[in-house]
Amino acid sequence: MPKEPKQLDELFHEGLKDIYFAEKKILAALPKMAKAAQSEELAAAFEKHEAETEKQVERLEQVFEAIDKKPQGKTCPAIVGIIEEGQEIMKEYKDSPALDAGLLAAAQAVEHYEIARYGTLKAWARELGINEAVSLLQKTLDEEVKTDESLSELAEDVINQEAQAA
Amino acid sequence: MPKEPKQLDELFHEGLKDIYFAEKKILAALPKMAKAAQSEELAAAFEKHEAETEKQVERLEQVFEAIDKKPQGKTCPAIVGIIEEGQEIMKEYKDSPALDAGLLAAAQAVEHYEIARYGTLKAWARELGINEAVSLLQKTLDEEVKTDESLSELAEDVINQEAQAA
Repeated sequence: MPKEPKQLDELFHEGLKDIYFAEKKILAALPKMAKAAQSEELAAAFEKHEAETEKQVERLEQVFEAIDKKPQGKTCPAIVGIIEEGQEIMKEYKDSPALDAGLLAAAQAVEHYEIARYGTLKAWARELGINEAVSLLQKTLDEEVKTDESLSELAEDVINQEAQAA
Repeated sequence: MPKEPKQLDELFHEGLKDIYFAEKKILAALPKMAKAAQSEELAAAFEKHEAETEKQVERLEQVFEAIDKKPQGKTCPAIVGIIEEGQEIMKEYKDSPALDAGLLAAAQAVEHYEIARYGTLKAWARELGINEAVSLLQKTLDEEVKTDESLSELAEDVINQEAQAA
């Protein structure tokens, strides 16, 4: 292709920095959420996702490598806001039977932010012909979708009922 | 049920206020995004979603009514952050062929925030036995999922290619 793909390249690079920042914020938030959770199952889900997130950060570093850039974050106001809402829940619903339902909802907002971003980045990587990045981003996207589905099941089967049964 | 569902009730009410604030922010952002879009198709997609969002706000007002509360918003830092990122794109990629790809990505982040919140609220409404709210929230959830899918198609079929073809 003789055309100059520079602009979408830049957008892709900016997007990578955004989600790299976000993943690191999430990595810092998950242990706090696990500690705050009343249900052992929810705490275990957060711990499992923490381990997964570590691998997702590594995958992002491989994507940076694939475009010859240094891994670098850029403040992402969206994830800052989403995590802030989770922290409000922790404070306002401390000792409430609905705490876990609120924490789980915050985690799903995080998941959906990631699903949106990884979906976009994967589509851009494909357009840019960076095949290695496409498969790395797809792997993480699949994990995020699965995590979100597991959280929905946990909410409907256990957590929301416990929130009611106080 | 003899049990006291007050706490999940409160969480549900808080969540409604959060998404009510978010929908109004989105309603204010969409015309700006439509105006900024280079592609007529993307502008049309934003305009269509604006009309849909107006109906979604009305549905939320009906949900407030179903729980005997006055419709009221509460600042939602998450949507503020997500929209802020969209505004950054508008500034930084003005006159760039990748502008539309960035705008579309911002819109999908908005959609996914809504999908997360409506999914949660619907599950809570079901747990609380507020059947009217369940069907209203489900209707909006279905629309948001469909909007997100249409945006993905538009990105892959048109917008991302145009971002490259400059």
